[in-house]
Amino acid sequence: MVRFVSYRSGSALRAGAVLRAADGDRLLDLGADPLVEILSDAGRTDAARAAVAAADASALPALASVRLEAPVRPGTILCLGYNYRGHVPDGVDPTADDPATPDVFVKTRNTLAGPADPVVVPAVADDVDYEGELAVVIGRRAKDVTPQQALRHVAGYTILNDVSDRSWQRRQSQWALGKCFDSFAPLGPWIVTPDDVGDPQDLLVEVVRDGVVTVSQSTATTIFPVADIVSYLSQVMTLEPGDVVSTGTPQKLPEAQAAHRPLRPGDTVTVRIARIGELTTTFIGGTA
Amino acid sequence: MVRFVSYRSGSALRAGAVLRAADGDRLLDLGADPLVEILSDAGRTDAARAAVAAADASALPALASVRLEAPVRPGTILCLGYNYRGHVPDGVDPTADDPATPDVFVKTRNTLAGPADPVVVPAVADDVDYEGELAVVIGRRAKDVTPQQALRHVAGYTILNDVSDRSWQRRQSQWALGKCFDSFAPLGPWIVTPDDVGDPQDLLVEVVRDGVVTVSQSTATTIFPVADIVSYLSQVMTLEPGDVVSTGTPQKLPEAQAAHRPLRPGDTVTVRIARIGELTTTFIGGTA
Repeated sequence: MVRFVSYRSGSALRAGAVLRAADGDRLLDLGADPLVEILSDAGRTDAARAAVAAADASALPALASVRLEAPVRPGTILCLGYNYRGHVPDGVDPTADDPATPDVFVKTRNTLAGPADPVVVPAVADDVDYEGELAVVIGRRAKDVTPQQALRHVAGYTILNDVSDRSWQRRQSQWALGKCFDSFAPLGPWIVTPDDVGDPQDLLVEVVRDGVVTVSQSTATTIFPVADIVSYLSQVMTLEPGDVVSTGTPQKLPEAQAAHRPLRPGDTVTVRIARIGELTTTFIGGTA
Repeated sequence: MVRFVSYRSGSALRAGAVLRAADGDRLLDLGADPLVEILSDAGRTDAARAAVAAADASALPALASVRLEAPVRPGTILCLGYNYRGHVPDGVDPTADDPATPDVFVKTRNTLAGPADPVVVPAVADDVDYEGELAVVIGRRAKDVTPQQALRHVAGYTILNDVSDRSWQRRQSQWALGKCFDSFAPLGPWIVTPDDVGDPQDLLVEVVRDGVVTVSQSTATTIFPVADIVSYLSQVMTLEPGDVVSTGTPQKLPEAQAAHRPLRPGDTVTVRIARIGELTTTFIGGTA
């Protein structure tokens, strides 16, 4: 499995790959072109994989010596509002409440945060929550693609924490403002390509808050699989390389739901997804 | 009044200003920097105005000889869902139904269209409608600004047609997909700066569809004035130069509402706003 990253070098961003060494992760530089340009070109992706295979990890710098940034800078971040089925008693059809179509909203560009960035809990937001999600990164332009074609337009998968303030989200019919505070979309820490991820509908998504597992559900329980979502969105809009489609959040476990309190400065939330990795975000106070 | 434009020259965009000559509009070139960079800097704006004042319009090329593009390329386009009061009978408080806060949604970057671009009516969309709106262009970064400060962060005003497919808009709770088809945000044709526009709450907004006036209402009847909207949004997000905030649509006149039919290829819609100008959009069929 190759983990593709964007990292900061001085004022510039560079692409890279993470290699495992005996004493921890190392970084292989992949040049100054944006990572999405490598991942949107099969030949360049293959060349990068070959460079990873040929590298001597022990001779590379430690991953910890650089600052990871969001692996892409999406022109558009689309999110699904409801996509995981809840638990139902035996004998009840789990698909009975399925909506006919995805409920889609947008996170604006100011929300993007890198995997090393804290999320700022704004002074005006008192009901901040996390949503750990499988995020799809578009690699090839997609317009009017069928579900059968859709996965060919995916560069890879990463993790999005769709941080949301519930009270702003509920002020009006449209959720945008509750979803669009600065830094409310930590993305990363890396992209894993489709051949390494395998079936995107067989991934365990978990959230750990302050040491306690609060979410644990497989993408097998989604209503709309990745291929259907990308196809559906592409009926409306041209999806461009680097765009991110986040696939909705599994509900909290019942005991976590009962114990839930809004996020506060000092809290830490980790979203981990099988065969991808984990994204840990620290919440801090605002400067106002 | 100076009308500031972005126009295409070969594969590049250039900034310009429109001057009136006896035989029609002429174009004064203002260089290769994006228009927003001129309008976000008071000194450069003044220099551009001085160049306009000093120019001999009759010696300039015809505006019609170039292709106008959207005056800015916004990183974020924010729109209001409901902001004009309807007509109420005498004795009824017109503010009785005012919401407490703006209802805000996002148009994604694929929606942007220039004033010369047609809007494509997609084959999958059968209930396409227009919304003629006063659009605010941010000139200086704005975060946590008060209503009293807000207008100092505005570079100027232009026109947005918030084209919407009602059936997609109503499929789910969130309107994003009905609002975000490719080309559903014609913007322009130019920006007029605040000193030329004067009071943004005293502008007549009209829509002419196929020769008939279907909307005619003043921004004096809005619930949330521009200064309040910008201030409110800036509590949530950092607004960046070039971002566009569209201020909601006045309702159709009763007879136009009664006669309304969805837009079809071949229709033409003009949005005109006093002291700004008019934006005429032709609707065409999709290629699918």
